[in-house]
Amino acid sequence: MDRVIDKISKINIFSNFTKGELLKIFDNIPYSVKEYSKGTLIRNSGERVEEFMILVNGEVITEMIDFNGKSLEIERVKAPDILASALLFAKENYLPVDVIAATNVILIYIEKKYLIKSFKENSDFLLSFLEDVGEKFNYVTEKLRITSFHTIREKITMYLLNLYNKQNKPKEITIPLTMDELASLFGVARPSLSRVISEMQKEGLFEKKGDKVILNNLKKPI
Amino acid sequence: MDRVIDKISKINIFSNFTKGELLKIFDNIPYSVKEYSKGTLIRNSGERVEEFMILVNGEVITEMIDFNGKSLEIERVKAPDILASALLFAKENYLPVDVIAATNVILIYIEKKYLIKSFKENSDFLLSFLEDVGEKFNYVTEKLRITSFHTIREKITMYLLNLYNKQNKPKEITIPLTMDELASLFGVARPSLSRVISEMQKEGLFEKKGDKVILNNLKKPI
Repeated sequence: MDRVIDKISKINIFSNFTKGELLKIFDNIPYSVKEYSKGTLIRNSGERVEEFMILVNGEVITEMIDFNGKSLEIERVKAPDILASALLFAKENYLPVDVIAATNVILIYIEKKYLIKSFKENSDFLLSFLEDVGEKFNYVTEKLRITSFHTIREKITMYLLNLYNKQNKPKEITIPLTMDELASLFGVARPSLSRVISEMQKEGLFEKKGDKVILNNLKKPI
Repeated sequence: MDRVIDKISKINIFSNFTKGELLKIFDNIPYSVKEYSKGTLIRNSGERVEEFMILVNGEVITEMIDFNGKSLEIERVKAPDILASALLFAKENYLPVDVIAATNVILIYIEKKYLIKSFKENSDFLLSFLEDVGEKFNYVTEKLRITSFHTIREKITMYLLNLYNKQNKPKEITIPLTMDELASLFGVARPSLSRVISEMQKEGLFEKKGDKVILNNLKKPI
């Protein structure tokens, strides 16, 4: 365990803990470590997710099989990260994808019942798990909300409006995301995003200085 | 408590419990009940969410204030339901909306620390909470995935493809949602959805009988 603990500590759920605390959590929890060589089918779609899966080394691809029998890549996940954590506690916990090792891979598995037991023994671990789920949920919800606006200009304005309300309607809003993260949240290319932000600044709607946005005359454009 | 327990038991998180079990949970947890008359501002945007909020009676509206100072309705929530549960455990737990009583309203508040304490004492309650969060997350993720496809025909196909993979690639897929729920998931009007489903059936792509879809010759249209 000792040799992977540094990697695990980079995962959001575990990032609040010291190395010593993490070793203590894993000392009190039964887990198994499995290695897969590149190209191995790790999990089949249709299987139930009954274990907490920590990807500690390598990269996996998730794929669906389309109606012609062809593979369709859905997502790539790089270590260190958690796999399918939202499915673990859902009633309908069937995996919609095949999980394939894109490189040599090491996974740690923890059975659901032992994870629950660990949550009961360690409130901080439970809180950290709930915090992670909450943040992922909020991210996806925000992304869905922004997706419903079609132009980049609308997306920017509605994103700023959300922050404006969260931050108690200040004249100067703080943007917690980098430009790359913003582009990813909006589902647009970064150069397109930069171009529209420049245009909106030239029109005097707002002024962006680093992570601050000073609102001048931003009217809701929809 | 006794008079509201029937309502609470209709909320997903509490629906796995008998009335007796729910009374026991609430006997061991400090909570407060507050009543608001129609039109009251219950919560301000910018406030931190530190309590679990159960809407037991009435209806609330959530609103943002736009850059012109005008209110913008975001959502209506009817009792019985949970409010802002994903924010409760997020680090950035600032409310992005004002919460206003659309009718006379009764809310039950439970402080976060007491909820955690109750989770530790009662694994079933914790599991039920995690299950609810997991299911909401999966719904939003699925909705976001489907939103990325533009035509209704594509949305239907990609939705069926997901079920096809989850259900172990059978010839006959079971649809777990009603037509209204499907329309809501796809973000389209129900009559439009019905029309496209009819068209696709006429073309011989699949056959829909109640909640079953028999795949004939459904090629991925993208």
